[in-house]
This record gives sequence, C-alpha cells and structure tokens, in this order.
Amino acid sequence: MIATLSDRCTLTEKAAILRFIEGHGLRVHVGEAGATTIVSIIGDPEPGIGETIAGLPGVATVSLDAPSYPFVAREARTAPSTVKVRDVLIGGRGVVVMAGPCSVESEEQLLVIARAVAKEGATLLRGGAFKPRTSPYSFQGLGVRGLELLSTAREETGLGVVSEVVAPEDIPLMNGHVDMLQVGSRNMQNFRLLSAVGEQPTPVLLKRGLMSTIEEMLLAAEYIVGAGNPRVVLCERGIRSFETATRGTLDISAVPVLKERSHLPVIVDPSHAAGKRSLVPSLAAAGVAAGADGLLIEVHDRPDEALSDGPQSLTLEGFAATMETVARVASALDRPLTTL
Amino acid sequence: MIATLSDRCTLTEKAAILRFIEGHGLRVHVGEAGATTIVSIIGDPEPGIGETIAGLPGVATVSLDAPSYPFVAREARTAPSTVKVRDVLIGGRGVVVMAGPCSVESEEQLLVIARAVAKEGATLLRGGAFKPRTSPYSFQGLGVRGLELLSTAREETGLGVVSEVVAPEDIPLMNGHVDMLQVGSRNMQNFRLLSAVGEQPTPVLLKRGLMSTIEEMLLAAEYIVGAGNPRVVLCERGIRSFETATRGTLDISAVPVLKERSHLPVIVDPSHAAGKRSLVPSLAAAGVAAGADGLLIEVHDRPDEALSDGPQSLTLEGFAATMETVARVASALDRPLTTL
Amino acid sequence: MIATLSDRCTLTEKAAILRFIEGHGLRVHVGEAGATTIVSIIGDPEPGIGETIAGLPGVATVSLDAPSYPFVAREARTAPSTVKVRDVLIGGRGVVVMAGPCSVESEEQLLVIARAVAKEGATLLRGGAFKPRTSPYSFQGLGVRGLELLSTAREETGLGVVSEVVAPEDIPLMNGHVDMLQVGSRNMQNFRLLSAVGEQPTPVLLKRGLMSTIEEMLLAAEYIVGAGNPRVVLCERGIRSFETATRGTLDISAVPVLKERSHLPVIVDPSHAAGKRSLVPSLAAAGVAAGADGLLIEVHDRPDEALSDGPQSLTLEGFAATMETVARVASALDRPLTTL
Amino acid sequence: MIATLSDRCTLTEKAAILRFIEGHGLRVHVGEAGATTIVSIIGDPEPGIGETIAGLPGVATVSLDAPSYPFVAREARTAPSTVKVRDVLIGGRGVVVMAGPCSVESEEQLLVIARAVAKEGATLLRGGAFKPRTSPYSFQGLGVRGLELLSTAREETGLGVVSEVVAPEDIPLMNGHVDMLQVGSRNMQNFRLLSAVGEQPTPVLLKRGLMSTIEEMLLAAEYIVGAGNPRVVLCERGIRSFETATRGTLDISAVPVLKERSHLPVIVDPSHAAGKRSLVPSLAAAGVAAGADGLLIEVHDRPDEALSDGPQSLTLEGFAATMETVARVASALDRPLTTL
Repeated sequence: MIATLSDRCTLTEKAAILRFIEGHGLRVHVGEAGATTIVSIIGDPEPGIGETIAGLPGVATVSLDAPSYPFVAREARTAPSTVKVRDVLIGGRGVVVMAGPCSVESEEQLLVIARAVAKEGATLLRGGAFKPRTSPYSFQGLGVRGLELLSTAREETGLGVVSEVVAPEDIPLMNGHVDMLQVGSRNMQNFRLLSAVGEQPTPVLLKRGLMSTIEEMLLAAEYIVGAGNPRVVLCERGIRSFETATRGTLDISAVPVLKERSHLPVIVDPSHAAGKRSLVPSLAAAGVAAGADGLLIEVHDRPDEALSDGPQSLTLEGFAATMETVARVASALDRPLTTL
Repeated sequence: MIATLSDRCTLTEKAAILRFIEGHGLRVHVGEAGATTIVSIIGDPEPGIGETIAGLPGVATVSLDAPSYPFVAREARTAPSTVKVRDVLIGGRGVVVMAGPCSVESEEQLLVIARAVAKEGATLLRGGAFKPRTSPYSFQGLGVRGLELLSTAREETGLGVVSEVVAPEDIPLMNGHVDMLQVGSRNMQNFRLLSAVGEQPTPVLLKRGLMSTIEEMLLAAEYIVGAGNPRVVLCERGIRSFETATRGTLDISAVPVLKERSHLPVIVDPSHAAGKRSLVPSLAAAGVAAGADGLLIEVHDRPDEALSDGPQSLTLEGFAATMETVARVASALDRPLTTL
Repeated sequence: MIATLSDRCTLTEKAAILRFIEGHGLRVHVGEAGATTIVSIIGDPEPGIGETIAGLPGVATVSLDAPSYPFVAREARTAPSTVKVRDVLIGGRGVVVMAGPCSVESEEQLLVIARAVAKEGATLLRGGAFKPRTSPYSFQGLGVRGLELLSTAREETGLGVVSEVVAPEDIPLMNGHVDMLQVGSRNMQNFRLLSAVGEQPTPVLLKRGLMSTIEEMLLAAEYIVGAGNPRVVLCERGIRSFETATRGTLDISAVPVLKERSHLPVIVDPSHAAGKRSLVPSLAAAGVAAGADGLLIEVHDRPDEALSDGPQSLTLEGFAATMETVARVASALDRPLTTL
Repeated sequence: MIATLSDRCTLTEKAAILRFIEGHGLRVHVGEAGATTIVSIIGDPEPGIGETIAGLPGVATVSLDAPSYPFVAREARTAPSTVKVRDVLIGGRGVVVMAGPCSVESEEQLLVIARAVAKEGATLLRGGAFKPRTSPYSFQGLGVRGLELLSTAREETGLGVVSEVVAPEDIPLMNGHVDMLQVGSRNMQNFRLLSAVGEQPTPVLLKRGLMSTIEEMLLAAEYIVGAGNPRVVLCERGIRSFETATRGTLDISAVPVLKERSHLPVIVDPSHAAGKRSLVPSLAAAGVAAGADGLLIEVHDRPDEALSDGPQSLTLEGFAATMETVARVASALDRPLTTL
C-alpha cells in the first residue's frame, strides 16, 4: 500500500499520519522528490485501514495496488522528464551522443579522442577512471589521475564529462570533475551506491544489469529518485542470453518498454552489447530508430592497444561514419542530433 | 575436413575420390547445389591424408578447418544472394514487407486484411493455414481451406503468399497455393522438414528457433541449401531470455551478424518478438535501421477477436502508421520500400 | 473452458453436446484417453453458457478455468502413473537405469556396451539409429541397420530397447525393433510427431526441449496422451542458459516440479546436461536424490572414438562406478535400483 | 602473464623484479596470500621477456598462459581447503547445515528458529540484518539491532552466526556479532566490497550472482583471497534462466564444476533457487548428492508472516524432515552431517 501526501499537507499532519500507521503495527518508508511525498506502508494491514488512511488530513491518495515505482512511473508525470548535463539536454527532441574510451589511459589518448568525437558531433565525453573489472588482474583504471585528465579534456573541448562511480566514498572526489555519474551494470543493484547517488545532485546514468529485468531497472531508478535526485537517465546495454555470437544481447525492445513504463530518458549503448566493432553502426542506428534519446559509444584512436574493450571500440573513422548514419536515421524521425 | 570438387570433375573421378576416402576408414557426406559439390569427410583422418586428397584428380580444394556451413557462408559467393518470391525480390536494395494475420480465419477476414496491407505497401501476404500450437487445445488452423483462401486473396490483390509448412507430406498440398514456404521457429531443427523443403524449388522463409543460436540457424539453412534449394530467407523473430516484459527478446544484433556470416537475405519479425502491439512500430523501424532486407508483420482487422496472436497484431490503422515510419527510415538509408 | 464427459455419456448425448456448443459459435476439440473424454471449447463464450453446458445430459463437469493439460495433470489420477517398457516398470518404487551409446555405430561396439551396462544393472538399452544432428555434415546414424543391431543386442542381453524417432513415417520401421520411442529435445514441439507417437501404443520417452519451459513440456505430453497413448515418461536433460562451463544447465528442480504437476514418471539425463564425463556421476546421484524415477546415461567403450557425444559418455569403468554411487543414494531413499 | 615469486625472494629482489617489469612498459599487480606472492603483468610484452623474467633472482615461475585465478585454482593447493567458522569446519568430510530466517525480525522469532534448527542438527545460524532489496519499499532489515539479536541467539544456542554485509563501512559493526560474512548475489561483483572482506580475517560466504558464470564467481573469490583472506566458501544459489516455474534455476552442475576448478569449499542454497517451500527437500538432497560441503536453508516458524522470502522458507517441521532426508543421503556417500 502506498499513500501519496497532499502538496498542502503540513508537517504536523504528516507526523500524525505516520504515527497512525505505525500505531497499527505497520512500518513506513517515506520518499520525497520535490513536492511529492510518498509513504510506502509495509506489513500486513487490517482490512479497511486503507480507507481510514485515505481520510486522514494531508493524505491525497491511497493506492492498495500501488505501482512498484511511484517516482519513476510514466503516470507520475504529465510529460517525459528531461535531464540536463552541463548544457546538454537529454530526453528532449534531440538525440544526444556520448562517446569516448572505455578507460582513460593517458592525456594524449584522451585528448585525441575527445577532440575527434567533439568534431563529429558528440556532446558528452564518457571515459572510465575507476573501472570495475571481473578479474583482479585486469587494468583497474587511473583513478583520480583519470578524473583530472577528464577535466582537462572538458576544458579544452567543452564536452561534458560522464564517468563511472563504483563506491559512495568516491562521490566527493568525482564531483568537481564529472558532470554525470555512471552507475555501471555490475552495480545496478548495489543499493547503497544507488542511495548515495540519489542523495546528491549530479545527474546519474544508470546502466541496466546484464541479467536484470526492466522491472528491476526501474526499481533501481526508484532508489535514486526516491532518495532525492530526479536526474536519472536509463541505459540499455545488452543483457545476457544463450547467444554467444555477441558479447551481450541488445534488448532493443527495452527502449519502447521503458518509454511506456517510465518518464525517464532512455539511451542505448551499442558497444557493450555488440562486443565487436563491426556491429556497432547497425546497432546504433537501430537504437535511434527504436526511439532512444541518445547513444553511448566507445571510441578509441588505437583500439588494438586499448587497455580495455578494444575489440568493441570504434576507430575515429568508424565513429565519423556511424555519426553520419545515425544523423540520417534520427532526422528521418524528426529528431536532430543535439550539438554543442 | 571438407573437400570441394572441381566444376570439371567427372563422375568417374568423383567415384574414385569417394572410394579413396572410404578406403581410409572415413565416411563421406556429399552435398550438391547447382554446380558445386561438397564432400564432407567424417571421422578421424590419418595425418597428411588431406594433402593426398587435395592432389586427387577432380578435387578443387580441401579445407582441414572447414567452415561449418559451406553453402550459406558469406565466403561462398562474391555478392549477397537474392530470392525471388513471385515477382518480389528479397535481398536487393528494396525493403520488402510481408504482412497478414497469424491465422487465416475466414474469407472475409483474410480479404479485408489482404486489401489493406496491399494498399499500404506490403508485397507479400503471410497467413497460417497449418498452425503449430503449444497446446493441443488451441486453434490449429483451417488447413487446406485456409490455403484456398490464400489463393483467392492472391488472385484478388496480386500479393504473393507465404504460409507455414509443418510436415513434409503437406508440401504437395501447399505448392499450388503458396509462393514461399515458412519453416517456423519450433521446426527450425526438424531436420526431415528442412531436407524436404530443400528438395523442392519453392522459396523458404526460415525462422530462427526460440532457443537457437545464430550458428545453429545457419546450419539449418545449410540443410536446405545443401539439399538443393538455394532460395532461403532468414528471419530473426526473438529469442528466449529471462526478460518477461516482452514475449521474446528481439536479437537485433542477429541482423548484422547474419549479414557478416552469410550471403542469404535477412528479415525481421517484430510482432512475435514483442508480443504486444504497441512495441511493433519501434521494433520494425529498428529492424530496418539494423540492415534487414524486409519485415514480417502481423496485422488483423479485429485483433481482439483473433484466434491466435491477437495482442501482438497491428490494427489496419496501426499498420498504415508503421509503414510510414518504416519508409522514412528505409529511405534515410537509401533503401526504398519495395512495391508491387 | 473444458468439459469432461461422464463415463455413462452415450454417443447420442455426446453428439448433442457438441452440436449445442458449436451452435453457439464456439469450436470444440475432443480428446479421449481410455474412458475419459475431454471436450475443449475454443472461442469467446457468452456469459452463463458454461452453466448451461454443465446441465446437458452426459456432461460430468465443466471447468471455466481449466487446467492446461487435463490428461497429464496431477489431478487427473489418484496415484502416479507407471509405464511398462518390455518387462521394466518405470514410475514405481524402483529406479530404472537406461544406458548405451549416443549412436549405434557397429555390431561390435553395441554388443560390448550392451553386455557391460546389463552386467552393471541397467535394464534398458538406449542407442540412436536415426540421429537429428545440428550440422548436415555430422554423422546421421545407421538408420535401419542400427535398428537391426539394437534387436540383436536385445536378444542377447534381454535389455529393452529405447531409440529416437525423428519422423512419423519411421514409426512402422521402428516398431519391431524398439520397446520405447524417444522424442528428442529438438522435436519436443514437432506436433505432428507428437500426435503420431500418440496414435500408436509403444511407450514414449519425451525429452525436454533445450529451451522449453516445464509448462510447454507438459503440453507436449498432453498431445501424446490426448491422442490415445498414456505411456509417456518425461526426461529432464538440461536447458540452455548463459553458463558455458557445461553443455546444458541441468534443471534439477524440474524433477520435483514435474512430480507436483503431473502423474507421469520423470527421469534425468545427466550426460547431455553435463557434456563432460567427469560431471556425470555427481549429476546422476543428484537426479536420484531429487526424486527421479530413472536415469538415462550415455556409455561408450571407447568414447574418444565415438561418432557423437564422446566427451560426455562414461567409459565402462566409469559407468560401473556411477551405478554403485547411484545405488547407494537410491537405497538411502528406500528406492532400490530396478534389475532385470 | 603471471609470475610467482619464490618463498625465499627478498624484498630487494622483489623491488628489482617489479622495476624490471615496469621498465619494459608493463604494469604490475601484486597479490599476496600467506607466503605466496603473485605478480600479474598487464600489457603487451615484447617477445621473449617472459623467459628473461623467469631468470631474475627471486622468481619461482612465469606462466605465459596463466590461470585466471591463481589463488583459488585447484592447482594452487595439493588438497581442498577448509574454512573454520567458529568451531565448525566447512570443506572437510562432514556436511555442514546453515539455517535460519531470511531476515531477523524480532528476538522471539529469532530465538524460536535458532533453538529449533540447532536441535535438528544445524551448526550455523544464518539471518539477515542488512537486507539488499530490489524495491526501496521492501523491508530493509533491522540493522544493528538485528546483529545484537544474532549475538544473543549465538550465546544461547552455541550456533555460529552468518549474516550478509552490504557495504565496506559496515564490516566493523558486524565483526563482533558475526562469525561469517555473507556477500550476497547482487554484490558478487561489487569489487570494493570483495576487496574489503578480503582485507579482514572473518570467513566469507560468497554467493553466486544470479547472472554470473562460474568463471566470474571464481574471479570474485580471487579478489577476496588475493586481498589476503583465504577463508572463502562458495555458494551456488540458483541462476536466472527462461524458466519461470521456479524463482531461480539451481545450477546443480556448478557443484562438481567448482570442485574441479577450485580448492574452495562449496555449499548449496536450495531455498533461493526454488522460491517455493515444497521443492526445498528434493533440492537439498540433490545438493548433497552432487558433492556439496554444506547447505544453506531458510527456515521460519511462521513463514506466512515472514517479512521476506516466506514462500520459500521451510517450517520448523519441514526443516526437521529435510534434515532427516539429507542425513540419509550424506551418510550413503560416507559424509556424516557435522554436529556441534
């Protein structure tokens, strides 16, 4: 059962409402985002108590069969929401392209790539400084040095910066350098991290877990928005299936499904799904055709020497060609590519 | 090990080659398609025998590490192959749309739908007369009566007819009425059926099994082409994954992967993948953007009364809107929609 | 809606019942097995008609929310059913072991294996004569010659014979040689084949499809039993998942789930699930511990030379050791191994 | 490439080795556990450098094609490892049963359950105080109060305590109350958490991710052992597949596969895999038959009122019956149940 409080509910009324609910042996969880206050009621309520709660001063509505994710559900807003990252609007009419290397490796590497993707029309630079790696013996990222290099690239190119956060304690470190915090696939259900990014204002890019359902992804987003940060963008990046011809199986249907169920912007990462450079242009075009608000594309100037994800990174030339195709598809659907 | 015989190999030479191989304790499987003869050599060959075979008169090449599907592999042809269904070319520059109801239910139903899809630009009519159904208690199709209705619709509209074949013994029944035989997902590894459609000349639409890898699909196509019928079109229609928000998970990556590995045309069925009408337009557009040569779309004039697959069937209006979107995306990629 | 007719329903009453239903715009499907007649009613019934049908002479019960598989559901019988294959009872207190090579390759091979597995306590010999193979270039089985060799082995050892049928037209060929017809994983939804094995009396071993749900497996069994053959044994043999360390993922939970939902006997095939010899003993023991009525184990005298499935075949010594372990686990659960 | 240092390698030699490697443009990662030091060498080595490194003073061996997880691989030890939790040895001849409620809910609930499971032969009490929940509106655990109740139960019953840790900062809080830290499925690739539990001495129960391969699980264990804590027990708890009849698909094959690849003890959690009480006894017996060193079973005195995972929790009576079955299977395999 979930109760939504009225906008004019006073603090006294609110306290009385909570006291009433707890007095009937139930637990409460209070979530607030902007003016909306959601009281989730946990436990086994006695019959009829929902109607009683609905009649308390300050209660707007009580839903017995509540949506699982009241803050992010499509019904929670009259229009789709947009998220502004630096000066770039995600979720509007334009299609936003984020691009960059999987890992920040050196100043030269980053700047070469950043300049190239900016020139071809990307508006955000994505690069990893803290890398969650399956093996402890794989390259784990440059850490703070990587963040500094991202800042440098931002200054030079004007691109906003997106980078992955792997632990709550790193957020303060990142906040000067990064315009959008990425929560990676392996952390999609790291609930402490979700709460932490929800308790600060930087926009969040939430990547779908490799074997997470769309429902679970929306509940993960609910953790963030419910904790106070409505600036969440969802990213489909391929799920795990039995097929081994590709690294992941891009669940292209997730784009229209997420759009139906939630008001949050949705982007597609064709690179991780494919795991193979040659497939990326087709999947990028498909993502835009399916209705995505943006793309996240891995690019490397010398992919064969990349410290991570080389095989799926586009070359600079490949990125230029992909952007041209993507622009044509976007334009056919009346959605121009967003530019700086 | 696979040996390819020379075009000028004589029958005497061929017999000598097979005798030689069998004389060394190996088994052979001989496949022919047009002028190409492929001898698959089964068993554990003694070292060096591959080179000896390569030197026999009539042998063109011997491959120790042979491609698994020599007839359908990309390397087997210098250009992609095309398949002509009645007057419609699949695999050329144009994008071909097949549409129709899941099941043929009545003359009126079929004609209403056929006229509508022809008017909106479909060039082939797909409708099921023999239906493989998970439950023995579900509607199993009209059978021969359904085929006759398809013929009637073809005469009136000029649309070529595609319909599913579920057993070898039905092929003669179907051949007067049908321009393309569909092998359905549940029969993708019904090897007797694959051989049977390979031993006759009507074009074949091979749908990917719900549980089948891309590799297995190409091996299924190899059964057909190797048996003598090169007119095969591959169809991605969604695979099974853990996600339950959609009926299947449309493996959009299969389009570029199949294009890389095989010369056969590839189409996409967004309807079965989605299982839900509202998702079909996005997935149809994504299929074309990913490079598909065509689409297979379920359409029904009164989907709520359909005897099968109603929830995923577009209405006539929905189909018209989808065609408009698809045409825009196809055109942006320099691929016009094929018309009658 | 499903109506069950009374045991004393006359043919005249039955005809009247069907006429009544069809007169209301509904379709019917009539299934009979022994004395039970099930009328499945397809279409959209007008409100209240179920009660009217229930009142017709000859109708026993009408279920609006019918079980999907009335013949095989647990509720259809007061006790689990048993299936007799030659003299071996499957589904009783004893645990039955079927063993043998994936493919019948030669008289010598088959007899060596048959004698060995009989000596160690197997009661049924399983060997393939018609092999459905993913690649057209893999060994396809010895065909009729293989069946003859199985007969020879049966005469010498007394073991009943289990062999796979891949097409309805082969059933007459097989019936003299084979005591149980196996429907393989790739044919679990080959509905024509299911109907064909249902229309003849030889017992059927139905293997679960690689990516078929338990529900679909029970519906496939319903095709067979509904067509008139109640002698069906279900076999869990591993499903497809993302894990690549094993050939399939043995869904051990399917054993108790199938036992809860159906009265049919259930066996486990650890060999195909594992794909690797060393794992088979553990999985065989687990299958029995989970409540299986039997096991299907691949055994080869020289697995490294096997024409199919060598890596997962136990050696003769490995089979002997596995039988000892299995016997101990079965005995601990008060289920002795069945002997000849 | 991975270099193992000699036991007699001096610190000066070690420094020289690292300097040499880094001087050739390579990165190093040094892992130590007890006397063993593993140097993982990252980057693209020039040809022949492996041999040069192998000749440096202090280097024991260099492996070009190194095992991915040198610390936990089977080859790393001559015998399986054992882990002692309080006084209970896991990985020896005995089979260890951990049992308890999913969540600690109240003192009364916990004590009733703890006494009952101790009486029936469990030796460790598992109960959650910090709960990672898919929905932010689900019960999140009692936190520190839950830990205190676990301590109370330990004092009264003598059972060692196992409880889940969800963030590094909670470890100090937990260490007085808990004898084994559980890393849950959703955190199996929370690499910061893995490192944190590796840097402290309390034994760790590592549960397999719903979406994780066996290879990834062993790499997760490598993070812990490589960070200095060799006391790791692996737990198979069901993976995600397409099957919906059960909550997860218990990958029973993982037990023998993990035993082949690693020296670490392996236990099975039948409760989460099944998601349904009635299946737990069969799966528990199957786990032991497959070779597991222990079981983790959810038990609740009033499962219908449980705040989490009620449907899969055994009742006290159900647990007693399950223990009897498990003991019989274990005994048949010469593995007695471990008792306090």
